[in-house]
Amino acid sequence: METVVIALGGNALTIGGKLADAPTQLRIIDNTANEVADIIGQGYKVVMTHGNGPQVGGIVVQNEASSQIVPAMPFDVCGAMSQGMLGYHMIQGLQRAGRLKNIAISPVAVVTQVRVDPEDPKFKNPSKPIGAFFTEEEAKQLTEEKGYTMKEDAGRGWRRVVASPLPLEIIELKPIRDLIEAGHTVIAVGGGGVPVYRDHDGDLVGTAAVIDKDLASERLAQDLDADIFMMLTAVEKCYINFNKPDQKALDRLTPAEAREYIAQGQFAAGSMLPKVEAAIRFVEGRPGRKCIITTPEKSVAALAGQAGTIIEA
Amino acid sequence: METVVIALGGNALTIGGKLADAPTQLRIIDNTANEVADIIGQGYKVVMTHGNGPQVGGIVVQNEASSQIVPAMPFDVCGAMSQGMLGYHMIQGLQRAGRLKNIAISPVAVVTQVRVDPEDPKFKNPSKPIGAFFTEEEAKQLTEEKGYTMKEDAGRGWRRVVASPLPLEIIELKPIRDLIEAGHTVIAVGGGGVPVYRDHDGDLVGTAAVIDKDLASERLAQDLDADIFMMLTAVEKCYINFNKPDQKALDRLTPAEAREYIAQGQFAAGSMLPKVEAAIRFVEGRPGRKCIITTPEKSVAALAGQAGTIIEA
Repeated sequence: METVVIALGGNALTIGGKLADAPTQLRIIDNTANEVADIIGQGYKVVMTHGNGPQVGGIVVQNEASSQIVPAMPFDVCGAMSQGMLGYHMIQGLQRAGRLKNIAISPVAVVTQVRVDPEDPKFKNPSKPIGAFFTEEEAKQLTEEKGYTMKEDAGRGWRRVVASPLPLEIIELKPIRDLIEAGHTVIAVGGGGVPVYRDHDGDLVGTAAVIDKDLASERLAQDLDADIFMMLTAVEKCYINFNKPDQKALDRLTPAEAREYIAQGQFAAGSMLPKVEAAIRFVEGRPGRKCIITTPEKSVAALAGQAGTIIEA
Repeated sequence: METVVIALGGNALTIGGKLADAPTQLRIIDNTANEVADIIGQGYKVVMTHGNGPQVGGIVVQNEASSQIVPAMPFDVCGAMSQGMLGYHMIQGLQRAGRLKNIAISPVAVVTQVRVDPEDPKFKNPSKPIGAFFTEEEAKQLTEEKGYTMKEDAGRGWRRVVASPLPLEIIELKPIRDLIEAGHTVIAVGGGGVPVYRDHDGDLVGTAAVIDKDLASERLAQDLDADIFMMLTAVEKCYINFNKPDQKALDRLTPAEAREYIAQGQFAAGSMLPKVEAAIRFVEGRPGRKCIITTPEKSVAALAGQAGTIIEA
């Protein structure tokens, strides 16, 4: 039975980037859950991962706004909270889809830590904005009081920025693997995982960072030795000459072709580029692997080779 | 190898009932984690459950306070968030304790739903206060707008109250069992579990309710067919004639004696009474079982029969 790791974007859980309320979030998840249920129904072992950008941003805002009455939790803890929230809703979506389609699904959501290197050069130049907007004065105060790195954000005010280091190790890999082998559909590595590093004693310590969800999911897919890695995003396929008259959708792509297109600057940094890079790494991890980039709606068709961009050797 | 379910009170994760900040919460957890690590080191399979009263209260307050900018999540989702938060910190505490004591521990936190009966009579008379205090006027408005049941709270203002229905089923029982069998230390049923019921279609739907953490933990211990069930609380033993001149600590207690003391009104409702009731139910579930009520600090000694109140036939 083949193992598929399916990564769902955090934006795919919003309404055009705007945070959804609980019933809406559940309804949005239902769409993806219906597709994933069909994949499980075809006999694949499925692991779902998900982004949390907008959601953890909301939790940070809530924590900051109430810090006078409730101790504000640091960013790593907010990430763990978002894993609880989205994991719970994804469980319910998968259970509902399984019931509707009469497919046995046992979803389980696992709090996942992902280890990063505190010496990762990305920590020197944090760039991921999180949480609320502040005035310049407030921003200076936050830097003094809490040591935050604050950056001006396109004229909209000042925001805290954190680093986006590389994922090195899925701490909960063993329990995730054991759950998959026991037949469960595991929801893990939410938001790219809670970022932790090992201190001098070897203990895991949370840190304020955002691990790219696709890179963390690829790490998980590698370490599980998955057969297929799907990244579900807002576009059905990868394109070259995107938004130009000679725009061309890519149905198939070898790692060699992907490298060539990357060299041509065909894929946008922070968007399609990290996905294609993750795809190359996954496919080259061992022969016979396949990576798919498509939308949630096209995931079943893409798995059958009839939609999406399929990256394989 | 015997299986022990260890239930830790949500208040035991605070500073005298006051919400702790993240470093303090971690430090508090370390104390319990050190004891639990020793229990694991003795060869027991351990499942940890925990309360979340103060913590989910804080999350509700944060959600209410920011509802103009971030969609406020309903109570069930706040519960799932608290499972993420506390599960993450408990994982780190156990990992640290294992490292310090050179004991191999693989902790994993699982989002857990617990099914209740929507016809449970407790829904007719909600009594568990949650979240912030409101004025009488605000309280009336919340009842009109959101259908909340609001009650005056000892002169301190009005608060929302929710029901505390009985736990009927641990939805994630199978994955929890599979993780235990694979050798992991599972953190589950946080806050008594996220309360869900089955709707007419059979789908799980979250509801605003607080499931008693000891009752939900006892349900889990029964369904896992655990050998030992420990409830860790603020007092080392159960007492009869509590706070009277002839107060007497109970070292051992049979279910029959416990019933007799309950009939005498020896145990306070909402405090020791539900614990003793859960103990009776667990011990009578099958012969050879043992239930222990004590503090986190005395848990290792109590397991060796040298502290706490031990309930067995």
